[in-house]
Amino acid sequence: MQKTAVIGIGQIKIGEHWDKSLREMAGEAALLALFDAGLNQVDGIFIGNMMAGSANKQVHLGAMIADWLNMPFMESVSIEAACGSGSAAFRNAVLAVASGQMESALVIGVEKMTDSPTLEITSSLATAADADLEVDMGVSFVALNALIMKRYMHEYHWQTSDFAAFSINAHANAVHNPYARFNKPITLKSFADSPMVCDPINLMDASSIGDGAAAVVICRSDWLSSSAPKIVVAASSAATDTISLQNRKDPLWLSAAEKSSREAYRQAGITPDEIGVFEYHDAFSIMAALSLEANGFCARGEAPRLANENEIAISGRIPVATKGGLKARGHPVGATGIYQIAEVVQQLRGEAGETQVKNNTIGMTQNIGGSGSSIVTHIFRRE
Amino acid sequence: MQKTAVIGIGQIKIGEHWDKSLREMAGEAALLALFDAGLNQVDGIFIGNMMAGSANKQVHLGAMIADWLNMPFMESVSIEAACGSGSAAFRNAVLAVASGQMESALVIGVEKMTDSPTLEITSSLATAADADLEVDMGVSFVALNALIMKRYMHEYHWQTSDFAAFSINAHANAVHNPYARFNKPITLKSFADSPMVCDPINLMDASSIGDGAAAVVICRSDWLSSSAPKIVVAASSAATDTISLQNRKDPLWLSAAEKSSREAYRQAGITPDEIGVFEYHDAFSIMAALSLEANGFCARGEAPRLANENEIAISGRIPVATKGGLKARGHPVGATGIYQIAEVVQQLRGEAGETQVKNNTIGMTQNIGGSGSSIVTHIFRRE
Repeated sequence: MQKTAVIGIGQIKIGEHWDKSLREMAGEAALLALFDAGLNQVDGIFIGNMMAGSANKQVHLGAMIADWLNMPFMESVSIEAACGSGSAAFRNAVLAVASGQMESALVIGVEKMTDSPTLEITSSLATAADADLEVDMGVSFVALNALIMKRYMHEYHWQTSDFAAFSINAHANAVHNPYARFNKPITLKSFADSPMVCDPINLMDASSIGDGAAAVVICRSDWLSSSAPKIVVAASSAATDTISLQNRKDPLWLSAAEKSSREAYRQAGITPDEIGVFEYHDAFSIMAALSLEANGFCARGEAPRLANENEIAISGRIPVATKGGLKARGHPVGATGIYQIAEVVQQLRGEAGETQVKNNTIGMTQNIGGSGSSIVTHIFRRE
Repeated sequence: MQKTAVIGIGQIKIGEHWDKSLREMAGEAALLALFDAGLNQVDGIFIGNMMAGSANKQVHLGAMIADWLNMPFMESVSIEAACGSGSAAFRNAVLAVASGQMESALVIGVEKMTDSPTLEITSSLATAADADLEVDMGVSFVALNALIMKRYMHEYHWQTSDFAAFSINAHANAVHNPYARFNKPITLKSFADSPMVCDPINLMDASSIGDGAAAVVICRSDWLSSSAPKIVVAASSAATDTISLQNRKDPLWLSAAEKSSREAYRQAGITPDEIGVFEYHDAFSIMAALSLEANGFCARGEAPRLANENEIAISGRIPVATKGGLKARGHPVGATGIYQIAEVVQQLRGEAGETQVKNNTIGMTQNIGGSGSSIVTHIFRRE
């Protein structure tokens, strides 16, 4: 299997982009990544997007974006795995280069979420849950996560305030990220004072949606000089779990995360403690907690302790959300996985600025679709 | 690059399946394909679907269908390239097996189109066109094709009735296909008498939508005994063109089809006249004509002559739509590409019954998204 490397990254600031269309956002991120890679051509384009079909009345982003980039006849396709779409697109691009049929690929994650009425976006987001078994009963994603969080608090005796550390860490890191949706810190008090969204999830437990686009360029790693450092894809792995939460044997365990990360550790030949930075999928603080546990960074029910003991900070044992995570960088759903990858690449290049993790050569990203139903894990190594 | 082979196919009859959900249809086709392959497990699932997000309020088909198939933790993802989604999913599966990271894969094309109001489906179909430059102006897919057909008739001096031969051939073949939406022949008179949909496209120039699901199983070809005949993927290629028709330099030439098939011929090491059967994308009879020309089966403007001289019949020079094509087998958009592949496999296995093409070892499929904007071509060979 041909090894691949990431040679270019591009991000736009996540926010409410009233002045930019879906294709303009995607194009901007793509051009930044191509410029960073020093390429003006690739062999294929892979788009990660979840909900343009319902939210923007536009599918067929592959052809649309290749056309917009003025790359005539370029192979270009969309990949969807709910909020895990970005990383799923990246994985398919990695497999395409690994096959030998492509030598390079551009992967773009894009989502435009703030042009439509809120109710329409909540309804579009709900298409990632089970339409027949969950959404028809009136459940939304925040409600599903609230059910999980309530059960977790009951089982392991944590209070709502114990989850504040995840969000405080994310916001502290986002202060220094020019692409983040929010550049302001939060405190235990502002967490406690924030309005309840769906008990026990308050506004500061929940990530923010937004318009966003990020892109990366990959190529065969043997294209690159063996003397200069390069960022290689050391592992790529995906797994699914039941789409509906009610069919999950254990709602407090992300089995697909465990399955996917174990396979990734095996491919990379490492153990979790060798990972220097972990861009996790903190769509809600309960997801941050479950991710740390299922991926082997702490024992069951112990993640809030890890967070409260500052072990997830830049100087901690397992730095997470180093650019703000979904909570503060923002969560433009289908684009999120590519932001995570771009951020790990920044870390491994030593270009992470104020939130640079020192002496680190291995980073991991994990992108989650649905309530833990589609999980895609990647490990990157500076070689 | 690891060679791949198709070892299982499954199809359900295209129609109005009021009694079956999206997952039930996909599951049925998948189980038929797995049974045909003699497997109960694969390494990954690839779903081709275009519009479940808008038409069925359901994305995340990857996790949903893996769950429904009771394949715990199975990697599973959706691929979208408008009406070319089925073949795009197949291509991504082929690349995954070619990479060596998977040894086998299940590819399912599925679309549920008849549960929703007609206007909603027309609007969902239109998401494959350019939302900003085409759909906002009120144009639908049939209108785009009518514009192309009118121009074609003007340039090459053909009459509406000259296009009847494409539809008559498709319906004649569909009579013998138990999975086809329509099992009845049509005549020049019924073609001429059919109501106008969008001048010059009448009802018999247009393919029929429907609920449908088809599946194929692929594996590394070196899994198979070298003595028994096998159906290998001899070529896989994709290309795009402008998403909007107005930006196309020449609306009468499918440049992406030319690009994609030339690359496929190169990979397979053949010329067009070696192809024994061609499952083309006859969404409208004008698309049938343009496909034959761009892929090198006749000169520009000559396709209606080919059809009227019976050269596209089972006994003709280039048999097409041998199971009814999009016109009569039906066009459940995201599933169509997989029906095409299953049909070519039936032909190469010698299991095509009444419409079997004799002495044929090479077949081609071509799946088109939008008005020629995403084109995916595959060549299969019995070895």
